[in-house]
Amino acid sequence: MENSKYVHGYSPREALRLNDQANMLDEIIHNDSLFAKDSFVLEAGCGVGAQTKIIAAKNPGSHFISVDISEESLKEAGKNIKSLGIQNVEFRHADIFKLPFKDEIFDSVIICFVLEHLHNPVLALKELSRVLKKGGIMMVIEGDHGSTFFYPDSKYAHMAVNCQVELQKQSGGNSNIGRELYPLLVSAGFSDVVVSPRMVYVDASRPQLVEGFIRNTFTAMIEGVGEQAVRTGITEKSVFEQGIKDLYRTAEPDGVFSYTFFKGFAVKE
Amino acid sequence: MENSKYVHGYSPREALRLNDQANMLDEIIHNDSLFAKDSFVLEAGCGVGAQTKIIAAKNPGSHFISVDISEESLKEAGKNIKSLGIQNVEFRHADIFKLPFKDEIFDSVIICFVLEHLHNPVLALKELSRVLKKGGIMMVIEGDHGSTFFYPDSKYAHMAVNCQVELQKQSGGNSNIGRELYPLLVSAGFSDVVVSPRMVYVDASRPQLVEGFIRNTFTAMIEGVGEQAVRTGITEKSVFEQGIKDLYRTAEPDGVFSYTFFKGFAVKE
Repeated sequence: MENSKYVHGYSPREALRLNDQANMLDEIIHNDSLFAKDSFVLEAGCGVGAQTKIIAAKNPGSHFISVDISEESLKEAGKNIKSLGIQNVEFRHADIFKLPFKDEIFDSVIICFVLEHLHNPVLALKELSRVLKKGGIMMVIEGDHGSTFFYPDSKYAHMAVNCQVELQKQSGGNSNIGRELYPLLVSAGFSDVVVSPRMVYVDASRPQLVEGFIRNTFTAMIEGVGEQAVRTGITEKSVFEQGIKDLYRTAEPDGVFSYTFFKGFAVKE
Repeated sequence: MENSKYVHGYSPREALRLNDQANMLDEIIHNDSLFAKDSFVLEAGCGVGAQTKIIAAKNPGSHFISVDISEESLKEAGKNIKSLGIQNVEFRHADIFKLPFKDEIFDSVIICFVLEHLHNPVLALKELSRVLKKGGIMMVIEGDHGSTFFYPDSKYAHMAVNCQVELQKQSGGNSNIGRELYPLLVSAGFSDVVVSPRMVYVDASRPQLVEGFIRNTFTAMIEGVGEQAVRTGITEKSVFEQGIKDLYRTAEPDGVFSYTFFKGFAVKE
């Protein structure tokens, strides 16, 4: 999550709180995104560098090659990383299905929130495996929208979430891919596959997550697909709006919200 | 889970594995069901003693009063506990809404898989609070069927799970109560409420859980309500059977299954 997304007129104190919050989520996902000293690591699909800045800062002794298909995103990622003074990242333009690297040159490969967008995630994993050294570690992180549940429950809220799932499916992706990491990694030929779920459970005793996750991350993201979902006939405006209202309702003091990220670790044989 | 439920023609080795498995689940739920030495603990709704035997064995320095509304269950619980040589449990017949105890006499109260069956869980929690000393700890454990997701996904499987949810609702209970522990404990007047989710994530790398949880615990439980669900018109036989088939399908080598238990801790003010 970029800080810029949080500029919604919050006070500096609020901004600080939300930043702590973002850090809390980063910690849930990246607490074990650790690489040995002098590792040569490929980050596949870095986008604007949202994850790059976390993993690069966490592993100052490693060297990262971060690639993306979008030249525009790479430009922004470069700016972001430079502004943070991070120096162990090199950006390269590349297609994840046809990487411009020789076989077995990376010690580790990490890919976060990318497989969900791909038609053929196993093919991508096989290409990543090609450039990974024998015995090297593959790390994959994905969310799973179908893991979402909340209190008060609401069929409209589930329908709104499903709009995002449906749109992602129409673009050839899969918003419920988190639960599939185990079979995907096995299919791609990796060994010693271990998948570790990271549930983000939120109730009123965790106000930063109520604000930072239920409201500003998850519901804001679902809200963002409303126009397209209505335009393409996946839902009706009033139904979608009720769903969004019900999602925000879960952020009230008696509300509860749960979402699960999945992290897979595997070894190249 | 009673060992007797596992006698399905398994070899002794298989029985041992399943027993380890049951222990693994117990550990997920009860790893922190710990009470100080010489504590006087109320277990509310002990049934046939499935949880009693775990918590009593885990806390040999505490004294347990385990109550239930069913004389028959209490009789069986007594036998179970005696056969295990556990001596720190005393069974009493009691109604959870009208406990035969004076105010504020217990150091702790624990209630597992009981609130899901009650019309008015907050009223029960208030009665439990009445007999709890000031500063005493309340522990609540519940499952949540709505937290279930799996791969391959199947609407029939979800429909089969929903039959259990619907039947529980018709008897005045709530199979999705796990996610509500936070608001329920707050409503009942407890302070310092902390809810900790316990996700049981199962893939082929955890064969004991595939057998012990997906097949023999969860799917067997859902399968068990089929007849009633068809009889009461909640589902059609063929639809339910497809759902059960699809649940068993998630136990195949490329399948994944996830279910979340919730444990709430709270303090009486």
